Order: sequence, then structure tokens, then C-alpha cells
Amino acid sequence: MSAPEKYPGSRRPLLVKKFGGTSVADIERIRKVARLALESQREGNDVVVVVSAMSGETNRLLGLAHQVLPLPDARELDVIAATGEQVSTALTALAIQAQGGQACSFLGHQLPLRTDSAFTRARILQVEQERIREVLACGQIAVVAGFQGVDSNDNITTLGRGGSDITAVALAAALGADVCEIYTDVEGIYTADPRVCPSGRKLKSISYEEMLELASLGAKVLQVRSVEIAMKYEVPVHVRGTFTEEEGTWLVSRETAFEARVLAGLACEHNQARVELSGLEHHPERMAELMELLAELNTSVDLLRHRQEGTQVSISFTLPEGELLRAKPSLERLVDDLGASAIQVSTGLTKVSLVGIGVRSDPWIAARVCRSLARHRIPVSDLAVNELRISGLVEGSRADEALRILHEAFELARAEASVTRPTNAEGAW
Amino acid sequence: MSAPEKYPGSRRPLLVKKFGGTSVADIERIRKVARLALESQREGNDVVVVVSAMSGETNRLLGLAHQVLPLPDARELDVIAATGEQVSTALTALAIQAQGGQACSFLGHQLPLRTDSAFTRARILQVEQERIREVLACGQIAVVAGFQGVDSNDNITTLGRGGSDITAVALAAALGADVCEIYTDVEGIYTADPRVCPSGRKLKSISYEEMLELASLGAKVLQVRSVEIAMKYEVPVHVRGTFTEEEGTWLVSRETAFEARVLAGLACEHNQARVELSGLEHHPERMAELMELLAELNTSVDLLRHRQEGTQVSISFTLPEGELLRAKPSLERLVDDLGASAIQVSTGLTKVSLVGIGVRSDPWIAARVCRSLARHRIPVSDLAVNELRISGLVEGSRADEALRILHEAFELARAEASVTRPTNAEGAW
Repeated sequence: MSAPEKYPGSRRPLLVKKFGGTSVADIERIRKVARLALESQREGNDVVVVVSAMSGETNRLLGLAHQVLPLPDARELDVIAATGEQVSTALTALAIQAQGGQACSFLGHQLPLRTDSAFTRARILQVEQERIREVLACGQIAVVAGFQGVDSNDNITTLGRGGSDITAVALAAALGADVCEIYTDVEGIYTADPRVCPSGRKLKSISYEEMLELASLGAKVLQVRSVEIAMKYEVPVHVRGTFTEEEGTWLVSRETAFEARVLAGLACEHNQARVELSGLEHHPERMAELMELLAELNTSVDLLRHRQEGTQVSISFTLPEGELLRAKPSLERLVDDLGASAIQVSTGLTKVSLVGIGVRSDPWIAARVCRSLARHRIPVSDLAVNELRISGLVEGSRADEALRILHEAFELARAEASVTRPTNAEGAW
Repeated sequence: MSAPEKYPGSRRPLLVKKFGGTSVADIERIRKVARLALESQREGNDVVVVVSAMSGETNRLLGLAHQVLPLPDARELDVIAATGEQVSTALTALAIQAQGGQACSFLGHQLPLRTDSAFTRARILQVEQERIREVLACGQIAVVAGFQGVDSNDNITTLGRGGSDITAVALAAALGADVCEIYTDVEGIYTADPRVCPSGRKLKSISYEEMLELASLGAKVLQVRSVEIAMKYEVPVHVRGTFTEEEGTWLVSRETAFEARVLAGLACEHNQARVELSGLEHHPERMAELMELLAELNTSVDLLRHRQEGTQVSISFTLPEGELLRAKPSLERLVDDLGASAIQVSTGLTKVSLVGIGVRSDPWIAARVCRSLARHRIPVSDLAVNELRISGLVEGSRADEALRILHEAFELARAEASVTRPTNAEGAW
């Protein structure tokens, strides 16, 4: 018999299955994860499992670090945070073994999964697949620690909150996996959060672009960068519930979307702050400086608006309230450097967004958003429309109500939501 | 200016300071460790800190693994256990930073500290010092995770209980440290455990060989293999209390012992089992088989005794009670294979040992041990004498009493304990 190839070209389908913190929250749930992995393997698949830290563990660990130092060194913070996934990964491998399977755990530095050196929010540069291929070829299940990697000096890095999604999708891309299954505590992607909007409907599929918008705009199910990677490498992603057998939601390219619909769903980002600088001198140089300063903030600045009144200019934008403190020195610099006459900050706002590939092509959508909210006397400001979404700011206290109104107005609970001109029943526009 | 040498030949003394689990049990104690490290640095030393996991953490982690599987895979167990030191190491680095110092943490795989692949009880093969030298050259304190290493395939390994002592001494040997300071919750090495024997006296110094015996015989202060490494590389080790300024006990070569004394101290190993196989056929081949079987047990077999009666032989030995269960199949094989007529197991015994470089040279020592215990009607069996120690078995319930009697009989509380022939006051021998 001739020596086997190093990686015998397996014809078995390859699944990457990612389980979040609530799915591995205790030993009983970890056993369930092991069962799901073994079932997939028995059905004839090669299986790679990616796990997050046990629910609450990352916060406990970061709490320890913050007890020592309010602003801990990011390198050491990552050393501490990475232990959460280290434990859950090995426990999951043990649980698979306990059920008669074979499994081997891998940490970021063992693959290695290489990242840049931006501690606490590192970006993946390269994923080595050799060791995973080796254990798969031996009939084992590879259990990979999510969230963590190493930079070129073997310093431990982490990928930021939700980083295990990124690990899973990046692994699936590197391995050319047939599916990347993201198991969560919800059953898929919904037209609106069902806890707020009971008529929220689970989507069968959603395009990468729409998911990217929803994730950016507050949908917590998938991490934004994981969607970017999925889109770039066209990884088939299946978002599904850990505690159900049912199909979840597939992320697919726009062309292969299963459903004929123009709107995907609604998302909310709470606790937004709106900043307005007025009385700025109108000068291209000044605007460039302003954009540079906002870039330096490196925060989720959105709904940037620029309004000219005579020779003066005013600028407004939103950012998460939690980042106001960090942004404050830069904002004060803005006022001084740019000679703004006033800076006005409003907080307690919610950004409500309607996402779908049909938003740009139908000008009636923006009109209907305004009309529906006006009918219920919910003021909306800073409305912005781009190719895939329409967003506006409402008072935080009325956000849930606004969500339900828009869900109803756009008939998102119907399997094939579409937008048409108003019918008589809805009254005149 | 010409380029600096990679490792400018530092003339500063180099200290390795190791802190056990109770010394880093909470954030307040970790701050104390940071203070001690910074004080040493300010006094003009280069400082390497080695830490154990926070007290209780290793047990918590192993408990999780045992919940999944009663006999968990050793590779995965090490992945889990190593996180304890990973957290305390980074927290210690943060605590040093919090006090204005500079510090960088290192895990086993980052140095790397290479071991063999004997998971849960790996042996160190090599310690790379390059990265530590680099940070020391920058004026930083290097904080190294104890207990952990990596094998040649980057699998995480651990060095067994007390493994952080081994890490510290091996690092001190590799770096040519001037002192390896082992900080513990006791203040040094005592002639007998002061909690049992209130007259127990802290030794100023002890030879490596004596310490090796004491550590093997139940003194918990230092891990046996750490003493072996210290002896092999003549590392000056200073065992001292974390919560006191006082000098502790120095481990030194026999020639440089500060005190003129023949006895170092007493140690107890509780929960010992004694196994006796009788009616064995007297045959050299049989004896070899027996020794091989005992070697396979890979446990702390001690006080092995071989007695010939006519053509028959009986064999007795001790091992920790906790290992009886694991040893049972092998023992039953012994009985079958060797044709033993009977196997007798006694439990609840304590091995009491008297250690000192003078044991072999003074035949009166064994005699006095027997006489002192007999006077208090404490039966002792299986007495064994070698170069550095004399050990015997007593009933566990009388072990503490035996310890106090022997401490008194050999005047170990006196700064210069020695053994002389009995005086009249002590009665005739």
C-alpha cells in the first residue's frame, strides 16, 4: 500500500458548527452541543465545532481585570479573556469523548489563527487549516476556541465581542466548508425582535448585504465582521436555534435569495446620542479636519448630516451614549479647532432602521415610514436612506412602539412582504 | 550611536520570585505581590515573577472537567487547568502596571517552556529565555505563568500539582538567577509542622538532599522535582513567607550549609496503605517480575521490604491510600502471576520520617527513634534507614503524638540539633 496523501481528498461534506455562550452555559448544555456535533458526524459529515465562553464567563474575567486597573492594558486583558473559550473548548471536546466520539481541542495559537496586534479587537489575517485537516482525517471532531488568535509575536489577541462568529465564518471560509452553522438562543433572523414585536417573523433567507445592515444596526444575532467575511468568501451561513430542530435562516448571495421580497426586517439601536455642532465656517479644509477627527474617534458614528445656512455650516451625527465620555475630549477639540459657535448633545435616543434590498428602488418606503409614525404622533428625526436601509431617530421611550408600527405598516409578518402604493383602506397619502 | 547588543550584559542581580495560590488568592493579595516585585526592582534587581493559579481555581476547573467525564482525557484536562495560571499571570502584570511599573505576562507557549507530552505530569525539557531577557532589558518585570508548558506539537501541558515551583526553579536555572525566592503561606522550612508540633523551628538553611527527602516524605512546602532541579543546577533557593519581612530558609549545597547540625527535621505522610504479599516462590525471575509490576504502578511505592522464610518469600511495601484503587488490578495480577498465597492490605497508617545528613553516620538515631516511641507505647513498624532519612509506619491516630515525641527526643527545637549518646537523665539505652 502506498503512503496515504497528507490530506486525503475527503469527499465528506464539511460543517463548521458554532455555539454561543448560552449554548455552552453549563455542563448539561455542553453535552447537548456534543450530541449535535456527533449527530452531524454520524450523518456523514466532517465536523468542526467553534465555541464561545460559557455565558457570563467573559464578563466575570473582565471584571477581575477591571478590579485591578480601571483601564487595563489591552494585551493582558486579552490573555485573561481568552481563557473563557479555552475552558469551554476543552470541556466540549471532553463531552464529545464522554459520548463515545473522538475530539481534539484547538486554541488560537495552536492552529495558529493569525491576527493583527489590535488587542481586544484584532482582525484575522490568516487561518492555518493543517492541524484541523489532520484530526478530521482521523475521524475526529475538531473543537476550536472562538474569539481568540495570536499576532505575529504569539501574543494572544481577541476579536472583540461576538468574535466567535468571526472565528467560525473565517474557519469555514479557510476550510471551504459546505455550511457554517451559527447556533444561537434565537431560532434565526427575524423581521423584528419577537420579544418587542410579537408578530416578528423568522426569515427563511436573507442576503449578506441585508444581514450586514441589520447586524450593523443593532441586530445582535450575528457579529458584523463575520457577515463581511461570509459575504466576501460566499460562505453559506445557517443561523439556527440550539434548542430546536427547525431550520433557521440562511445567509445567501442576493441572487440566490429564496424569497421574493424587498424588505428584510427592522432593527433598533438603543442609547444613542446625537451631537450637533453649529456655526462652523464653511470651508473645505475645515470639513476635512472634522472628518479626520471623527475617524479618530473610531466609534460607530452614523447619520452624519451636513447642513449649510448661508456662510455657516452645521454638522450632526449619532454615536452610542457609552462612547460619549471617550469622545468628549475630541468633541471639545472640534468646537475649539473649527470655531463652532455651539455644541448640542441629546441622549436617550433610539435609531430605528428598516432594512431590505428594495429600499432604494422604492421612494414610497421613506414616505410610509414618516406617515405611519406621524399617525401615532411619534416624532422621527435625522431620517437617512441608502441603498439597503432607511434609519431615523426616535425617543428611546417610544422605540418599541415605533418598531411595532413599522412592522405592521410594512406587513413584515407576511411571508412575502412587499411595498405597494397605499390602498384605499389605508387612506390617502 | 552603534546598535545596542541584543542582550546588553546586565550586571543587575536577577531574582525569580514565585508566589503560590494563597499568595494570589484575591485582588488585594495580587496587589501585595506586585508591591514585592516592584520593591525588588527598585532595589536594583531584574525581576521575574512566577505565579500559581488563584487559590481554589485549579480545583474548580478540574471539577468542571470531572463533571463532564469521570476520567477526562489528560490533554484536554491540561488545556482547562492551564487557564488558572493564565488569569493570575495577566492579573499580576496588570497589578504591577497599576502601581506604575512595567510588566509583561508570558504563558508556557509564549516563551516557550518545552516539556515532554506526559499530560498532567509533564517534565520540562527546555526553557527559552530570549523573550524574558528582552523585557528585562527594557526595564520591565516579566510575569511567567507557573505550572504550564507546551510539548513539541504545541499541545498545552501541565507539570503536576506544585508545578509552579518547578517552573520557578527551572527558570532560575535557565536564566542563571542569583536567587529563586519561593513565597508561601508558611515562613520557611520547619523541623516539624508547627501546627502539629508547636516547638517546630524554622531552619536557616537546609541542604538540597535533605530538602529532597523532606519534600518526598510529605513536607508540602516545596515540590520534589523543583528541589531536584535546584540541586542539579545549584540554584540558590530562598523559601519565605509572603506576609512577613523575615528571612525564610535557604536551600544550599551540603558544603555551604550555615548551621552545624546532623538532623533537618521531621515529615509525615498520612493515609498510607501497607500491602503484604506472602507465600511467594523464591526465584530471581519472580522478583524481577514483581519489581516490573511495581514500576508499572508508577506510584509512590516506599518502604519496600523483602523477607525470606525457608523457600518462601514475603514482600511488603507502602503506597498512598488514594492510589490503592488504581493499583488494585495490578496487585491482583501480582497475586495470580507470582503465586502468592495471601495478600494483606492495612490502611490508615502514617509514615513518619526523620531527615538529616547525619542519619547514616549515627547508628544511635534509629535506636533512639524506637526507644522514644516505645516509651509512649506507640508501635512502629517497617523501619527503614537510608543515607538521609529514617522512616517508619505508625497508626494514623497517633502520628501527631509521634511527631511531637521525636521532635522532643532529638531536640530539634534547639538551634543546633545534634545526636549524642544518651545522658543519664534520659535513662539507659
